[in-house]
Formats: sequence, C-alpha cells, structure tokens
Amino acid sequence: MTEDKTEYDVSSLAQTDLGLVVQQLTQAEGDAQADVFSEILDEAEPGTIAILLESLPLDARYERWQQVEFGERATVLSLMRAAPRMEILKRMPSEEVDLLFAQLSPEDLIDWSDSLPDSFTDRALAQMGERQRQRFELYNQYSENEIGRYTDHQMLVLSVKASVAQAQRFFRRIDLDCSDNLFLVDDQDKYLGCVRRYEVFKHAPEEPLTSLMTEETRAIAADTSLLDAAEAIEHSREIELPVVDDEGELIGRITLRTAMDLVREHYESQLMATAGMDESDDLFAPIIKGARRRAVWLGINLLTAFLASATIGLFAHVLSQVVALAILMPIVASMGGIAGSQSLTLMIRGMALGQVSAGNLFSLMKNELGIGIVNGLLWALVIGAISGWWFAEAKIGMVIACAILINMAVAAFAGVLVPMILQRMNQDAALSGSVILTTVTDVVGFFTFLGLASILYL
Amino acid sequence: MTEDKTEYDVSSLAQTDLGLVVQQLTQAEGDAQADVFSEILDEAEPGTIAILLESLPLDARYERWQQVEFGERATVLSLMRAAPRMEILKRMPSEEVDLLFAQLSPEDLIDWSDSLPDSFTDRALAQMGERQRQRFELYNQYSENEIGRYTDHQMLVLSVKASVAQAQRFFRRIDLDCSDNLFLVDDQDKYLGCVRRYEVFKHAPEEPLTSLMTEETRAIAADTSLLDAAEAIEHSREIELPVVDDEGELIGRITLRTAMDLVREHYESQLMATAGMDESDDLFAPIIKGARRRAVWLGINLLTAFLASATIGLFAHVLSQVVALAILMPIVASMGGIAGSQSLTLMIRGMALGQVSAGNLFSLMKNELGIGIVNGLLWALVIGAISGWWFAEAKIGMVIACAILINMAVAAFAGVLVPMILQRMNQDAALSGSVILTTVTDVVGFFTFLGLASILYL
Repeated sequence: MTEDKTEYDVSSLAQTDLGLVVQQLTQAEGDAQADVFSEILDEAEPGTIAILLESLPLDARYERWQQVEFGERATVLSLMRAAPRMEILKRMPSEEVDLLFAQLSPEDLIDWSDSLPDSFTDRALAQMGERQRQRFELYNQYSENEIGRYTDHQMLVLSVKASVAQAQRFFRRIDLDCSDNLFLVDDQDKYLGCVRRYEVFKHAPEEPLTSLMTEETRAIAADTSLLDAAEAIEHSREIELPVVDDEGELIGRITLRTAMDLVREHYESQLMATAGMDESDDLFAPIIKGARRRAVWLGINLLTAFLASATIGLFAHVLSQVVALAILMPIVASMGGIAGSQSLTLMIRGMALGQVSAGNLFSLMKNELGIGIVNGLLWALVIGAISGWWFAEAKIGMVIACAILINMAVAAFAGVLVPMILQRMNQDAALSGSVILTTVTDVVGFFTFLGLASILYL
Repeated sequence: MTEDKTEYDVSSLAQTDLGLVVQQLTQAEGDAQADVFSEILDEAEPGTIAILLESLPLDARYERWQQVEFGERATVLSLMRAAPRMEILKRMPSEEVDLLFAQLSPEDLIDWSDSLPDSFTDRALAQMGERQRQRFELYNQYSENEIGRYTDHQMLVLSVKASVAQAQRFFRRIDLDCSDNLFLVDDQDKYLGCVRRYEVFKHAPEEPLTSLMTEETRAIAADTSLLDAAEAIEHSREIELPVVDDEGELIGRITLRTAMDLVREHYESQLMATAGMDESDDLFAPIIKGARRRAVWLGINLLTAFLASATIGLFAHVLSQVVALAILMPIVASMGGIAGSQSLTLMIRGMALGQVSAGNLFSLMKNELGIGIVNGLLWALVIGAISGWWFAEAKIGMVIACAILINMAVAAFAGVLVPMILQRMNQDAALSGSVILTTVTDVVGFFTFLGLASILYL
C-alpha cells in the first residue's frame, strides 16, 4: 500500500483495494460518511455495497442503508449475510419491508427463507405473483443441502424441434450472466442436451438444432449436495450446468458464480465452526444477541473443562505432595491438543474435498499415527530433559516424557477417528470435532501424567 | 446415500457423489484398483483425477499415476496440490519428467515454480521455446501475492481498428474457457475496452468494432492482490477481466474459474493455518517429512506452554497449600482461550473479506469487549457457584469468578487487537494469531487466578 494511494479514486472501484474503501468509509462519521458512501454508490457493484454495509456498526449501517436506491435494495440485501440482513430488516418500517419483498425473486426468497422467521417468508410470498410462488415451491421442495434449492431459473431453453435460426435469435436477444449454453428439452420438459453458443453462429439458420446438440454436458440431479455440485462445475469445462429433478425434467441451472458462492460459504462456515460460530454471524452483532450465540459454545466447552478438572481431582493426593506436577500439567494437555488439531484439520480439509472415505481410513490412521509417534518421541525427549533439569529430578522428566508420547499418539488416532465418526453421524466435524478432541487429549493427558506420577511417587 | 447407489455407474461421473468414487477406488487394492481407476480415467475430468490421486497413499498413488495418459499428465499434475505433486515428480524417471516439462505451459510452470526447487524450474524452462520463456518471465516479475503472476494468457485480443467481421470470425473459430469478451488494444498493446460476444453477432460485419466497444469493463492492475482481484470479478457481472501492467499494457486476463481457485486456496490455507499447517500439505505425507513439517508448530506451541508453566511456577507456594487451585486452574485458561478464539475467528473472516480496517477497529473493540464482559459475568457466576459448591468453600468460588471475568474480557480485547497488529506487520493472522492469543489467555488466566488466590489464602 503506497502512501499516495490513500486519496483514493472511487471511479475505478471494483479494481482497487477494497480495504482502502472500507477504511475511507469507516473513518468518516455522520454526514462526511454519508458523502463518501453516496460517491461509492454511484460506482460500486451491489456485492461490494453489501460488504461495505456489513463492515459498519449497526446504527451507521442502517443510516447508510437508507441511502441505497430502492431499485437496488433487494439485490444488495440478498448479497449480505443472514444476520446483518436481519438487523436491517428489523429496523425497517413495515411498509418498506413489503415494498422490498415485492422486488424479491423466488430465488432470492429461498435464500432468505433459510434464516428468516416463517412469518416474514409468508409476507414475502403474499407479495408474489402466482407463477413466482410456484417457482418458490419448486425450489422449496429441496433441503438446504441440495443444489435444487439454490438453482437459478435464468437460462436459455428451447424445444429440441427448434431451428438454428431460433437459437441465433435467442442469443442475440438475451444476455445472461454465466451463460454459454442453450438447453434443449422435449415436450415433457425433459433435458436432452445442450447447444453451445460457440456453435450456433457457425451454422446455417435453417439447420435443425439437434444436429448441433451435444450430450456431453450432463445434468446435475437436484438432490446432489451443494459441495458435489460445486465441484462438478468447477472441474468441468462449463460455466453453467443444467439441473434436473428425479424425472429428468429441467428445473434450472447452476452457474460457476453460484458455485463460487457455495464454496466460499462452505469454507467460511468451516472456519467459523472451529470457534463454534456460524457463517452468517454479524461482524457487529448486538451485544446481548452476540453474547447469547457464543454462550452455547462456551457452555459446551465448560462441560469438557470440568471433565478435565474432575480427572485432575482424582489425583489430588499426589498433586498436594509434588507441586511440580501442577506446574507441568498444562504442557501435556497442550501438546496433545495441538497434535490432535493438526490431524483433525487435515481430515476436515480432506473431507471438504471428498478425499476421505472408509477405503483409505486405515491408511490415513497408519500415517497419522506414524507422524504422531515420531513427533511424540521427539518432544517427549525434549520436554522430559527440560523438565528433569528444571526440577532437578530425573523421575519427573521420565513421567512427563511418557505422558507426552502416549498423549500425542492418542491425539493422532483420535484426530482421524473422531471426524470420521462425526461424518457418519452427519455431524459437522469442524464444529464438534475440536471440542471432542480437546476433551480426549485433556483427559488422557492429565490421566496418564498424574496417574504415572502417583505410581512413581506414592 | 441410498444402498443401491453403491454399485456406482462411472459413466455419469462429474454429476454424482465424488465421495462414492473415492470409496470405490480406495477400497479396491492392487489390480482391482487398477481396473476401477482405468474405468474412471475414461470419463473423469482432470480435476477429478487430481483429487482422486491425492486421496491415495503414496505407493498406490504412484501406481495409479502411471495409468494416466501422457497427454493428460501435465494437466492433472497442475491441478494437484504442491506437496502431493512433488511426491510424484520425485518418483518419476528423469526422462519422463523432461517429457512432462515439455508439455507445461508457462502459466502452469509459474504455478509449479512457487513450490518447486529452482533446479526443476530451470530444467522445465530449458524445455520451452523462446516465446514461452518470455511469457514465463513476464508473469514471473510479479510476486506470489500479485494477480499478474497467475494471469491467463488465453484470451481474444484485436486491434481497436478491426471490424465486426473480424470479431465474428474470432468468435466462430476460437472457443475459450470463461470467455465472453474480446479485448481491444491500441498499437502499443494498451488496453482500451472490450466488445461483448453478445453484441458481435447483432451488428453488420462491415461496422467498425469501436462502435460496439464498452469501457465499462475495467482492467485489473497486475499488482493487485489475489483476494482483491478475485473479489473484483466475483462482484462484477463478468466471467473474465483484463489484467494490465503499470503502463496499461494488456498482459492477460483473470477468469471466474481462476478466481474460484484462488478463493478456495485462500480459505484452505486459513483453515490449515489454524493448526500451523500449509494449504499444499499432502493427505499422505511421508511420515518423517510430515512429522518435520508439524514439529515446527509443536515447538512454537511448547514455548508458549512453558511460559504458562513458568507463570504457574510463580505460585508454587499457594498451589502446594490449596490443591483445589491445581484442579480448577485449567478451566480459567480454557474459557479464556475459547472466548478469545471466537473474537479472533470473527476478525479473520472479516479480514478475508476486507471488512476490517483502522476505521472500524474501535467500534469492533467496543462490541467484542461488550460481548466478552456479558459472557464473562455469566460464566463467572456459573463457574464460581459450581466451584464453591464443589470444594465447599465460598472463597475459591470468588477467586475463580474474578479470574474468569478478567480473562474473558482480556481475551476479547486481545482477539481483536492481535490480528490487527499481525496484519499491519504483514503476518498471517490465522497462523500466528491463535498461538499468540493462547499465550495471552493462558498467562493472564493463570496469573489472575493464582495471584488472587495467593492474596486471599496466604
């Protein structure tokens, strides 16, 4: 970041440092902020405006929100995360909310309804025309983990009987985001194949479209999981893929841009889950609400912490005689925790890519256990030596060395097994994995360390 | 996953559960695995093959690798992560490596060279023609965090003096991935604007192209950071954007697919960094190598663990008198650690989106501190009550309640401040943030808890 860039020219917004715009906006206050924001509004894409609004504290956010043009509001709000969006909706006068709902497409409403109270969804549905409501119902059949739910209805479709001339007219008249193909369907709306835009203008207008049709572009089933669907398009050479229901009927398409959103959301939710939080969480949640959301996770953690304490409590007798044990105790738990989280993280990454399965579980276990034992031996020696020297007693060095080795091996083992079991139980390994693993490494660590000590010292 | 799906039809590969294919492949062994894999090879995209190879242990991986056709090898390897790719390269006979290098495009080689030893890069360069080498040098000027380095050279470019007829011919002849635009340049190769494919076939062949040109599609500067560039295209309505050097000369483009890759890589590296690992790490690293990579992080963690132990050591006297302190001590550190990691994770997510800056730092701090204090009060009461009841002594309940409140407030404060400071120092907050934060919450937790206890008990 060079100095002279700070006086930043909003006119080339998309192409420069978003961070700089955020800084300009957040550093200004009141009217000055309103001025900066109205300049930004002239140029920025809705996605950028959504990010900017999220970066503001609640009051300022709502003030800036009121500057957004009515025509853009539905789009901007759709591009925001669920929690900050809800904060804005809650502050809006009821008539304005209804106006906004009237602008929503069924696709947007599906997205909103995942987090909106049902009463809101019903209100929005009441604003919609009959055909749009039907489209909403069509998508709404699918669950939050099925691609059918997030399907995009904007696509080019023609009957398989159409001619090249019709296709040419279509491509001349309609310009869609991420659209390269024209999907062909039969009389029952069944997907048959597609025609590439690239081919359409190479052929004579009177030719039948079927002669250009390729069956190469295979449809995605509407009940495919979001990640699998995103991967399918990411690894294909297409920028859009057709989505069909279980009868083969074409219900929409998924674009590369949607896939990118889904991938971003997935990783964000995995990252947030490691701290027991949610992808939709607001950077500026109201304090009480934010506290409540996080309290659950702290409470769960407290249970495991008490479990660890109870384990220590079993050895109160030896602890009161050898104070060095109390001093060294956290090291055993901490090294186990780190080693375990390394295995766990590798597993979570592999699972996000679909690379982990029952077939390679055993090989993974062997590999991780190997790494755990090698590092366990190394650090057992180091920590044993330092501890022995610190307390001028070989015995304590031996005790901690054994405990470290055992705990790190167990950590590697659990780091592979816990996420696999959670996956089988359809639980999010990124969320519950770390807390279970910490419980294991704490309890095993304290138990082996203090247990060995009480054998040797008492 | 229904039962009858297990006997899975490879012919619709891209569109079905990748996890199922991984399972089929990894459960088979030796010749059976070779058969399964050769069936997959007939149908799967190179990206899928890359993922499948990564999911195999090293020996099996290399055996399956040898089944991949020579013509596909460079592409598949390019789509693999750096560490698993290196494992394959190391096992390949030297002549085969040279053959492979001869197939590499300059864009691929740039990507490889980020992780390849220089000797390999030089060998690959030696296999390239003069013009390709020049392209390599062009991209190689840019650092690993500048979009210029990962620019794609496959694009449609015409002189601003060309006619619509020429553009039509171009679009008929060449079909590129993620290509919607034709970029127009002047005699000095400076980017002037673009013509949309959508427009080209609506106009008469003899018209000058300039009449169709739009300046709306703004170029990205080659020194833009990867994340900013990805965001620019994600929020635009384009599937590709031109990239220019500091003189405005067009050097390539970035596509939505590249942007998706960059975003995935970024989040993966953030996720892996939380456990001190690297995005490129292999699911099946050789044990010694894997152990060495992780040892560094364990070592750093050990230093902080010893710091925590040293803090406890200051209070050996009170510990030896009140054994309840040793038993409860981990709870204080653990609750602080969790609260801190919640603030830290929120910050890391915000920073990945460019939403955090000097301007809103103060508001963020206030908000997080508020949440920290509310939760601190709540859990101080709960933990204080339980502890007092457990050890039948009000004094110990009071001590731990105070320590919890202080530690959780400090954790929130540090959770906001630490990543900001790290960002200023150009350090990865996801990597160093957690270890610094844990040090803070451990030391503050033990110090306040045992310090208060020694005041009250001694």
